[in-house]
Amino acid sequence: MPVTPGRIAAGDSGAFVWPVRVYFEDTDAGGVVYYANYLRFMERARTEWLRQRGFEQDRLRADTGILFVVRSVHLDLKRPARFNDALSVSCRPSGMGRASIDVAQSVTRGDLELASAHVRLACVDAERFVPVAIPAPVRSAIELDLGEKR
Amino acid sequence: MPVTPGRIAAGDSGAFVWPVRVYFEDTDAGGVVYYANYLRFMERARTEWLRQRGFEQDRLRADTGILFVVRSVHLDLKRPARFNDALSVSCRPSGMGRASIDVAQSVTRGDLELASAHVRLACVDAERFVPVAIPAPVRSAIELDLGEKR
Amino acid sequence: MPVTPGRIAAGDSGAFVWPVRVYFEDTDAGGVVYYANYLRFMERARTEWLRQRGFEQDRLRADTGILFVVRSVHLDLKRPARFNDALSVSCRPSGMGRASIDVAQSVTRGDLELASAHVRLACVDAERFVPVAIPAPVRSAIELDLGEKR
Amino acid sequence: MPVTPGRIAAGDSGAFVWPVRVYFEDTDAGGVVYYANYLRFMERARTEWLRQRGFEQDRLRADTGILFVVRSVHLDLKRPARFNDALSVSCRPSGMGRASIDVAQSVTRGDLELASAHVRLACVDAERFVPVAIPAPVRSAIELDLGEKR
Repeated sequence: MPVTPGRIAAGDSGAFVWPVRVYFEDTDAGGVVYYANYLRFMERARTEWLRQRGFEQDRLRADTGILFVVRSVHLDLKRPARFNDALSVSCRPSGMGRASIDVAQSVTRGDLELASAHVRLACVDAERFVPVAIPAPVRSAIELDLGEKR
Repeated sequence: MPVTPGRIAAGDSGAFVWPVRVYFEDTDAGGVVYYANYLRFMERARTEWLRQRGFEQDRLRADTGILFVVRSVHLDLKRPARFNDALSVSCRPSGMGRASIDVAQSVTRGDLELASAHVRLACVDAERFVPVAIPAPVRSAIELDLGEKR
Repeated sequence: MPVTPGRIAAGDSGAFVWPVRVYFEDTDAGGVVYYANYLRFMERARTEWLRQRGFEQDRLRADTGILFVVRSVHLDLKRPARFNDALSVSCRPSGMGRASIDVAQSVTRGDLELASAHVRLACVDAERFVPVAIPAPVRSAIELDLGEKR
Repeated sequence: MPVTPGRIAAGDSGAFVWPVRVYFEDTDAGGVVYYANYLRFMERARTEWLRQRGFEQDRLRADTGILFVVRSVHLDLKRPARFNDALSVSCRPSGMGRASIDVAQSVTRGDLELASAHVRLACVDAERFVPVAIPAPVRSAIELDLGEKR
């Protein structure tokens, strides 16, 4: 699968960015955001990126029988986020296979990068969870994103 | 619906009790368990109580097409639970209607009651979320529990 | 404590309203929003309402040593919310004691009320979790809200 | 930092294993465990492993002023876990630096591996979140684990 993980910088002009506010629900007794919750923030950005490209995931599932599921995550946590922080979560596709999409993501507070991740999504049949080809319209939209990036 | 909310005391001999350990995931930056998470703990106890009575909820759904959903919760939070606390979560039916079950629940640490709740469950059709009669075997098991209580 | 629980209607003109989008993280295998997560949504609205009134809770804690914690919740769940729903969560104070605030909250999708709650907040010392008087500026702001409501 | 990421097989005799039951709180509308929740499960296993080795993290923090935080996670999700699944979560140190511990983890259901991860923990000052040397007793215990593994 010809997938080249991309790089994404804070403030990178081409990336889709979604604001996330940190509430008490996101923090733990260490006083900072609980590590698993960065994955929740990153999924919100991916959902909004797909929506902005014209794809509602409930509609996709109803119309084509597919789901995007996470196959792997490489997550780096650099600095802690805290209650009340106003974060920016970016999302940019960095590669695509027949049934998978690679996405580079970043969480920043102002100019400071707090976390970054490479996420591989698999396109699967919603009932059996086996890989299926990415629907053509989604493929085209992501190719546009990948093209813009270069 | 002839439902009489019951009372439940810490250490009440007849109640089903399930142990819950507090992890970082359960706490917030206030240093204590995040309030919504008591509802997660209480649902674990209800699931294990039903399992102990012989009912697996995935099996119930596959066989009878029903789900138990929460219709209302009255939750009182008395003292904070903290990271590493070993809690006991109790669960005791306190009443039953044609399509609803009332459950009294309590969260204790040692002799100390930290939280209590009255939860009303509705038995619904898993697709349409409309009330349906509680399946007869579940009804019988709960009647036993209600009988024992008196 | 002279606290009169208020009533709040969907679309009630005077209430503070905060938008909440439903993501996968909020749902469960029943296909709908997991019941405890309504409490997360409601806390977001309370946080934003306090922010809009000029109070940042981290600042309040640093300056006055207090935290607002939830003492009780009466939650009614009327209809399920689902993935991708665009919800409105309202928040309106309905009463105040020396160290407590009562808040009426509602979750709506369009014109439809999905959930409602009465939440009692206690103002506590952030270290010892014992009740302390609500700081005067917060008290004044809430009195304004209570006054507007009548 | 001489850290050699280890390998861990399902049923690997030397690994610490912790049982985790899947509740509704852990699933999403896709009908399976929400991806971020594998990180919650894995942290429970790490907490219980440290406890079994004699280390309570609240005690460690009070006595030595340190916290273990996650610095990076490489998570692979192979097959979905579902409601009611009885999972086993393993945990085995695979390397250690002055201020970091590498842990290999696995989530299995019966003989089937559903997920695996390599997690790097950093030992930090609980107030300033800067790296500090792992306390000697923890270091010794982990060296024992690392020695047993070879």
